[in-house]
Amino acid sequence: MADFLTLIPPAQARELLLSRVQSAQSEKTELVEIADSIGRICAEDLSAPHPLPQFPRSTVDGYAVKAKDSFGASESTPAYINLIAEVPMGSRPHHSLGSGEASGIHTGGMIPDGCDAVVMLENAQLSRENEIEVYRSVAPGENIISVGEDVFQGQLVLRRGKLIRPSEIGGLAALGITELRVARKIKVGIISTGDEVVPIDADIQLGQVRDVNSHTLAGLVNSSGAVSVLYGIIPDNFDDILVTARRALTECDVVLITAGSSASSRDKTANVINRLGEPGVLVHGINTRPGKPTILGLCEGKAVIGLPGNPVSALVNGILFVVPLIEKLSGKLSSTPRPSIRATLTVNLSSQAGREDWQPVKLIPEEMGWMADPVFGKSNLIFSLSFSDGLICIRPEETGLSAGEIVDVFLF
Amino acid sequence: MADFLTLIPPAQARELLLSRVQSAQSEKTELVEIADSIGRICAEDLSAPHPLPQFPRSTVDGYAVKAKDSFGASESTPAYINLIAEVPMGSRPHHSLGSGEASGIHTGGMIPDGCDAVVMLENAQLSRENEIEVYRSVAPGENIISVGEDVFQGQLVLRRGKLIRPSEIGGLAALGITELRVARKIKVGIISTGDEVVPIDADIQLGQVRDVNSHTLAGLVNSSGAVSVLYGIIPDNFDDILVTARRALTECDVVLITAGSSASSRDKTANVINRLGEPGVLVHGINTRPGKPTILGLCEGKAVIGLPGNPVSALVNGILFVVPLIEKLSGKLSSTPRPSIRATLTVNLSSQAGREDWQPVKLIPEEMGWMADPVFGKSNLIFSLSFSDGLICIRPEETGLSAGEIVDVFLF
Repeated sequence: MADFLTLIPPAQARELLLSRVQSAQSEKTELVEIADSIGRICAEDLSAPHPLPQFPRSTVDGYAVKAKDSFGASESTPAYINLIAEVPMGSRPHHSLGSGEASGIHTGGMIPDGCDAVVMLENAQLSRENEIEVYRSVAPGENIISVGEDVFQGQLVLRRGKLIRPSEIGGLAALGITELRVARKIKVGIISTGDEVVPIDADIQLGQVRDVNSHTLAGLVNSSGAVSVLYGIIPDNFDDILVTARRALTECDVVLITAGSSASSRDKTANVINRLGEPGVLVHGINTRPGKPTILGLCEGKAVIGLPGNPVSALVNGILFVVPLIEKLSGKLSSTPRPSIRATLTVNLSSQAGREDWQPVKLIPEEMGWMADPVFGKSNLIFSLSFSDGLICIRPEETGLSAGEIVDVFLF
Repeated sequence: MADFLTLIPPAQARELLLSRVQSAQSEKTELVEIADSIGRICAEDLSAPHPLPQFPRSTVDGYAVKAKDSFGASESTPAYINLIAEVPMGSRPHHSLGSGEASGIHTGGMIPDGCDAVVMLENAQLSRENEIEVYRSVAPGENIISVGEDVFQGQLVLRRGKLIRPSEIGGLAALGITELRVARKIKVGIISTGDEVVPIDADIQLGQVRDVNSHTLAGLVNSSGAVSVLYGIIPDNFDDILVTARRALTECDVVLITAGSSASSRDKTANVINRLGEPGVLVHGINTRPGKPTILGLCEGKAVIGLPGNPVSALVNGILFVVPLIEKLSGKLSSTPRPSIRATLTVNLSSQAGREDWQPVKLIPEEMGWMADPVFGKSNLIFSLSFSDGLICIRPEETGLSAGEIVDVFLF
């Protein structure tokens, strides 16, 4: 039985794996309509084909004027300007304004030639037919968005690696870009192992447990923008696992193997990863709880991760290692941190120095704000996660957290 | 031209609408396989059909024993126990232990009858064939998960209104529950209006702009767990808008109408909502920026929201009003707050007292942590959102924020 001689800090373990995989897979891209691009990773640098706006627009309802015609105007000494036209919405105004001339205009309307400012409706009124009196002077450019003020022609508007949100879709729509290249979805093969594990719809016998891990990991993978491929439950036999892992490695970008629960079964996973391809196991044993037995491997350029059979460990380590891997392989620019909720810890929590602990907590609303209440339970109680709202981290340099401390709760 | 005589605080406006819509729609449910339930809202209370685990399991690799046989054992005076069997993984052990007898067992194995504790492998060794010496005593129940320790039979394991995450799927899988009832997806009809607005793939003329709002709002709706239905672009004509809005109200659970940009066009939207059904407009004018002209309406029990034509306003107000509405209609329990990222504001920001401002910011990593750098721009520059990572809120009771203040950045 192998011991964990050298437990590696989780951040270092993750970096060891992520630095060895190339987002080569992200070279494989697909063209999608912008409506289908939400949540995908942009796979090309996109520039504005034309300036935005393409014509000078009014930002208010009012009167397009030459600014100088309004200079000195006030409530007591209004400026009188001839109202010669009205800008139609949605088309180019066919009139050009001369000195002392104004045109009615709506928000978003195109500024007529000869105008350089817009007087707001509330700062003017009709003095007689075809004449307005203006009570407030406007500066040149006032209440106008000029050509290219949003983006100029050729400006980089969407960078390769950017996550597509509704705002990115809006930007592309404004520029008439109706489709774009995104990274194709990373395929993650999932193999469950263990003689005691049976399919979730099987008749269960005493001594058997249902296959939780295939389904939690598939859920995690699918909700992280990748595609899961289930390879079923393989008995705890080296050759059988190797054959299935080989097939998964050929067909997928990443392979996850959840080991049986025993130490020997975990060693089997490590041996399978070593036989799958070079260099094999990179990290075996991570200084974290849950998840100490997690194995990070690299086989012929593809990541193969051995997760503990314990469903809580498997899911928490999936969050810690598989999700960042999917993001790296998709070419995602990792520019923003993970958001969290600040809450007050309800009880003391102890932790071993040097180890990073991830503790499930429930959020409880109190008058003073949110409380983070740890959900305890042996680490293989799947409902300790289901009954929690998120996880808090006790960092390696800490030996615990005190009741009343402010903690960051990461929803999962 | 109507003025905004009574601007309502956004929280109050939201509450006015949400308190008037019933999640009656959530009565309409659908049965889905657990694999397809991620991100959906559970529509039934689910109880455990059997205890979990269903049999007592070992949490370690070692030897199942009667605890009392180990009492007093130490390195210098080990206890000697007969090793009579090995528990097979995945089936019920067919032996029962008598006094002075032990059985080999793996993590997850079923505890044989007659045993009440497990000695860890590292606290014992084979002394001779069929005998172990135990160096450490174990207490009754030690290293065992007992029947029902995760959940007991009949325990409520998933509550109506709960968002389904991978951990919920794991819990259901463990219990052999392969499908469940979820709230069917809320249908949100989207109508764009304005004479100047053209489809995103149309040849564009000076004076025209492409239909940004249909696409940003559809993206927002779809990524919030609902389904968008686009009703296209309707010219700025009362009767045409009313006809289309009537159709949308019949076919959808919620109707969004983005007004043209001018004040008269926004008034038209309010009139349409008043004609659509009782009671019509609930709120016209919200004390927020962007989004002052947002209209919240209720027509024959369905929410109809008039959003400003300005794409930034439309999207930000979609986040503030449409997303919570979708959650309410889906029956989602609103138990957790929205997570955020804490960052240091780079510059002073001023705001009008009484008004709630939502300011787009970019997150910039610095040695000390994250900086929140406001992305300025006239409010109708769509790329001010696309170039931002999130929004910060200046609350009504504040007249601004100072450079150096810690702010919560909400990603969008």
